[in-house]
Amino acid sequence: MDLQFFKDFTIDVDLALEAREIVQGQTGREIPGVRVDRETYEHASVTIVIIEDPSAEAVMGKPVGTYITVEAPGISGRDPKAHHEIGLVVAQMLSRLMPDLPVPSNILIVGLGNWNATPDALGPKVVSETMVTRHIFNYAPQELQPGMRSVSAIAPGVLGITGIETAEIVKGVVDKIKPDLVIAIDSLAARNVSRIGTTIQIANTGVKPGSGVGNQRAGINRETLGVNVLAVGVPTVVHGAVIAQDTIEQFMDQLKANPSLHKLYSMLNPNFSQTVIQKVLEPFGGRLMVTPKEIDDLIQRAAKVVAGGITKALHPNLTDEDYQYYLH
Amino acid sequence: MDLQFFKDFTIDVDLALEAREIVQGQTGREIPGVRVDRETYEHASVTIVIIEDPSAEAVMGKPVGTYITVEAPGISGRDPKAHHEIGLVVAQMLSRLMPDLPVPSNILIVGLGNWNATPDALGPKVVSETMVTRHIFNYAPQELQPGMRSVSAIAPGVLGITGIETAEIVKGVVDKIKPDLVIAIDSLAARNVSRIGTTIQIANTGVKPGSGVGNQRAGINRETLGVNVLAVGVPTVVHGAVIAQDTIEQFMDQLKANPSLHKLYSMLNPNFSQTVIQKVLEPFGGRLMVTPKEIDDLIQRAAKVVAGGITKALHPNLTDEDYQYYLH
Amino acid sequence: MDLQFFKDFTIDVDLALEAREIVQGQTGREIPGVRVDRETYEHASVTIVIIEDPSAEAVMGKPVGTYITVEAPGISGRDPKAHHEIGLVVAQMLSRLMPDLPVPSNILIVGLGNWNATPDALGPKVVSETMVTRHIFNYAPQELQPGMRSVSAIAPGVLGITGIETAEIVKGVVDKIKPDLVIAIDSLAARNVSRIGTTIQIANTGVKPGSGVGNQRAGINRETLGVNVLAVGVPTVVHGAVIAQDTIEQFMDQLKANPSLHKLYSMLNPNFSQTVIQKVLEPFGGRLMVTPKEIDDLIQRAAKVVAGGITKALHPNLTDEDYQYYLH
Amino acid sequence: MDLQFFKDFTIDVDLALEAREIVQGQTGREIPGVRVDRETYEHASVTIVIIEDPSAEAVMGKPVGTYITVEAPGISGRDPKAHHEIGLVVAQMLSRLMPDLPVPSNILIVGLGNWNATPDALGPKVVSETMVTRHIFNYAPQELQPGMRSVSAIAPGVLGITGIETAEIVKGVVDKIKPDLVIAIDSLAARNVSRIGTTIQIANTGVKPGSGVGNQRAGINRETLGVNVLAVGVPTVVHGAVIAQDTIEQFMDQLKANPSLHKLYSMLNPNFSQTVIQKVLEPFGGRLMVTPKEIDDLIQRAAKVVAGGITKALHPNLTDEDYQYYLH
Repeated sequence: MDLQFFKDFTIDVDLALEAREIVQGQTGREIPGVRVDRETYEHASVTIVIIEDPSAEAVMGKPVGTYITVEAPGISGRDPKAHHEIGLVVAQMLSRLMPDLPVPSNILIVGLGNWNATPDALGPKVVSETMVTRHIFNYAPQELQPGMRSVSAIAPGVLGITGIETAEIVKGVVDKIKPDLVIAIDSLAARNVSRIGTTIQIANTGVKPGSGVGNQRAGINRETLGVNVLAVGVPTVVHGAVIAQDTIEQFMDQLKANPSLHKLYSMLNPNFSQTVIQKVLEPFGGRLMVTPKEIDDLIQRAAKVVAGGITKALHPNLTDEDYQYYLH
Repeated sequence: MDLQFFKDFTIDVDLALEAREIVQGQTGREIPGVRVDRETYEHASVTIVIIEDPSAEAVMGKPVGTYITVEAPGISGRDPKAHHEIGLVVAQMLSRLMPDLPVPSNILIVGLGNWNATPDALGPKVVSETMVTRHIFNYAPQELQPGMRSVSAIAPGVLGITGIETAEIVKGVVDKIKPDLVIAIDSLAARNVSRIGTTIQIANTGVKPGSGVGNQRAGINRETLGVNVLAVGVPTVVHGAVIAQDTIEQFMDQLKANPSLHKLYSMLNPNFSQTVIQKVLEPFGGRLMVTPKEIDDLIQRAAKVVAGGITKALHPNLTDEDYQYYLH
Repeated sequence: MDLQFFKDFTIDVDLALEAREIVQGQTGREIPGVRVDRETYEHASVTIVIIEDPSAEAVMGKPVGTYITVEAPGISGRDPKAHHEIGLVVAQMLSRLMPDLPVPSNILIVGLGNWNATPDALGPKVVSETMVTRHIFNYAPQELQPGMRSVSAIAPGVLGITGIETAEIVKGVVDKIKPDLVIAIDSLAARNVSRIGTTIQIANTGVKPGSGVGNQRAGINRETLGVNVLAVGVPTVVHGAVIAQDTIEQFMDQLKANPSLHKLYSMLNPNFSQTVIQKVLEPFGGRLMVTPKEIDDLIQRAAKVVAGGITKALHPNLTDEDYQYYLH
Repeated sequence: MDLQFFKDFTIDVDLALEAREIVQGQTGREIPGVRVDRETYEHASVTIVIIEDPSAEAVMGKPVGTYITVEAPGISGRDPKAHHEIGLVVAQMLSRLMPDLPVPSNILIVGLGNWNATPDALGPKVVSETMVTRHIFNYAPQELQPGMRSVSAIAPGVLGITGIETAEIVKGVVDKIKPDLVIAIDSLAARNVSRIGTTIQIANTGVKPGSGVGNQRAGINRETLGVNVLAVGVPTVVHGAVIAQDTIEQFMDQLKANPSLHKLYSMLNPNFSQTVIQKVLEPFGGRLMVTPKEIDDLIQRAAKVVAGGITKALHPNLTDEDYQYYLH
């Protein structure tokens, strides 16, 4: 079963971590042009996937760049110490991806998604939780501490509600306020429900066209905006199709493992599986979203950790106490 | 694949309509002791499943009684005329299941579920939308029109939040206010996403233990409350396991239909399929809920139609204009 | 007590109707340069205040232009017929203020305010309820009926959350998508609680700086955007200061009316009253908002009627049935 | 101006602290039969008002009992340390009012109010945030730590939605599950906006009839339930009438202080002021609620601190770390 197979059912693999696992699972070895690093923290395990060249880009289905995945099940709990540490890890990873950002500089946070639809509300929630300072620079600069950057934030909405491509709205605002860096927050789809609200991906590639839960058509990246874009994504759903595929794969694995059935396994070609999945998914019209019942809480907590991490990364002089307020 | 198979994976088949389809699909003929009737309306198609005796109860996995299913995709739209008609159909079906209810009488609406969790909030929402009159009987009887009944409504919450079995809370209130009839509203799980928010099941059996999305352990029925209980349920989720099962079934159907693979099919016993499904679902811990993205809207609209239907059924003298207000 | 008096306590008089009543109450006669017209409908009474010249602008504290106020208590009820008629009146009044708008043309709806704060959420809610068509023009023009206009909608947020002047965000989007007309929706403060959610003001002046509940500093008008701006406002709060002032005024009226106290009335100068009000309001820090308990419902209903009226005005060929869907 | 005066305008003085200030302000000395104590903590100042006998009860308009007021502006902030300490103070004060509560024992939390109306949602929110254990005692006792009590919680709703007196619902549940103690959580009205969401009153009197924002007619107390009732209240609104009264009082104070106007002051009798206030409030129909804009946040934070304090008081062996989770 190759990656092409997944594309036919248009399951976007939003996490580079998962894309790599899939490709590797098929080939059984590391992908040429892809470098992987790992770091471990008390409450977070970090995987850094670097896609180095266009051939790796083609295989992985994701643009050349660095993708840092912070896996931290503690986000979904209520432990303030865990949230504190995970937020600091997020801050540190963000800082690595913006090594040359001067102080002072202007940063625009863009919270993608729809504040009315629970699984798509992460971006707007991060916007609400982030510490914006741009207006303080303009109206009350005496209240700022040294080393703070000018931060602003918008939640542009989704095409179905605005009638405007999200990238157009963002481009309009970028042209007007001319930030040095855009940080775009997006809801992602994962391949595993256990990643919902517990994994954060930070990438220096921006958001590519057609990805994310909201499915914007135009990308939010250096090409469309003319300015560097970091993308921060958190899985909030799993596509229903994933379960169908997992079932098929499991079925095939069981056949393969069984001596008396192994011969018959070899008789089944990929087309056979494709037909099965298509028949299963057809009546659902592709609208299937799988979420755990506690999705509202998961998103609220992930939004706080992301907002805390961004705030700490952009204002590194913030005292630990002030930073904690953003996680509380 | 028999019904037992479904039970092993604890997919409750909440709709009698679907239970009958599954059993019939396995046996290929009508189930002894089950009677089925159909009626068609402009915006609703009604199926009446009557489980007549204990042997049918055993096969169907649902208690002896009458189950009326109103299938009305129009609930999910914005057409006020459709909502109006569907509400009237619901009112008429409710009236059939409470033929001897005198005027005056006291009715208690019980909205099961959790008002904090979107897919489980239908019951509490119906409570909010229903016209209660019991306090008017007590404090301002002059404002009542002739023929109105005394209606009250509670949303008892769920075990995880209250620490009390829902049935205990309801029993406490029933003992105190002594209604002639209880109408319990519950969120159900369906086998097909297209039923979410578009199908209403009305049964004269009450709610059986362990069913519904909230999974109360003790039933809400004549046995536990000592008073007749109508159950009104609307599907708000599909269990993730359903997709896995549909995939397996589809797979088997494809094998069976293919002459060169038919031999393979006959070699696979039910245990084989069970192992596959178990392996697929294990990592998700059974918490998988499949819902469409627009779930908030679907539940809001279904709650209005159910509340409108109940209000019309309990106060049949209500003018058409007053009734419309409850749907708007 | 002159208008200056109100300004000292920065109670904005958002409704031209109320500004006129206050000025007239002080002078006892019609204001030169202000023309007033009235129209009566079954469910709405309409007052048209035209401020004709700069001298009237100075007295009224509102820019030269036409202000149409639709007073319709029925908005707050559940009568679908009333909502239907009021929406049509709103559509008709909007049409009068955009007499030369060609078909085809591009219109941008701007929902001012904060979707997280109940009394400030009207604008974003209207955005959610409005029928946008701009993306259909771009991606599926075959689905459009003749005579439809290209409509888009944004909810730019508020300064405290974005760090960006709302006018800057809107200007950025306007420069990008170049609409022929902007319709800005805003929450207003009224002088009377009974106007909350039941009065709609439509003006061809745009939104002036510092007005509205959200208090944007820069205006949203022809000067700032370079394009015509209609403003649609609905009162959602009354400032606490209004009650203090009403009390003082009432006190003075009672003194004046009492023969034995009249002499003493004349001894109290305006400074005396100002001191009293200042002392009352000081501890509250000016943050006092008076709202009725049912504010959530009031805003939801007003948003539907405003969105329905705008949709009908922009797409006059919409059948009555299609239009009704927007009110339901 | 005497207390009677306030009663005519039916402004309930929910906080004993404020009732005492008003009575004392009129008489200039401590009230016989009322004892007052004060304690100071880093983030909270505590006032204990003990109404000792029926004569004091009559003057204060509140039943004999102990009223502990925790004033803690830090509740409304984001400082986790302040929330931690304030929660511990609440726990300690609760413990003082239930000195003889045995371990084991059963406690029922009752969250009064309406979860659909922001300023009335405090009680249901505390229910959602409280750690309930009664079902664990029944179904998984091995998971309990020694010294834990059996805690359950209900949110019975309000008369307008249920049609049932809240006290009846609570009585029904109390008769069924027979708790040793009821803790009732209620939204209160304060005389000062700065108390909204920052003051917690704990009383061993239960909730008296007709008090609180929801205005239940029957009390929730030992008389109605047959079991001890602690009441925990947090101000969430100020009645509009308070502003009118403050204005009149301020007016009178200014007259009195001014030598040339002092004669005028002596000519004004209480009836005069009453007439003024009545005329001001009439058009508003008594529905006026004054709340700050940030009411949603204030209630969310107060609910967490109250739930944390209750949890710590009922399970004193809870580690500090576990307790912190309830505040986060």
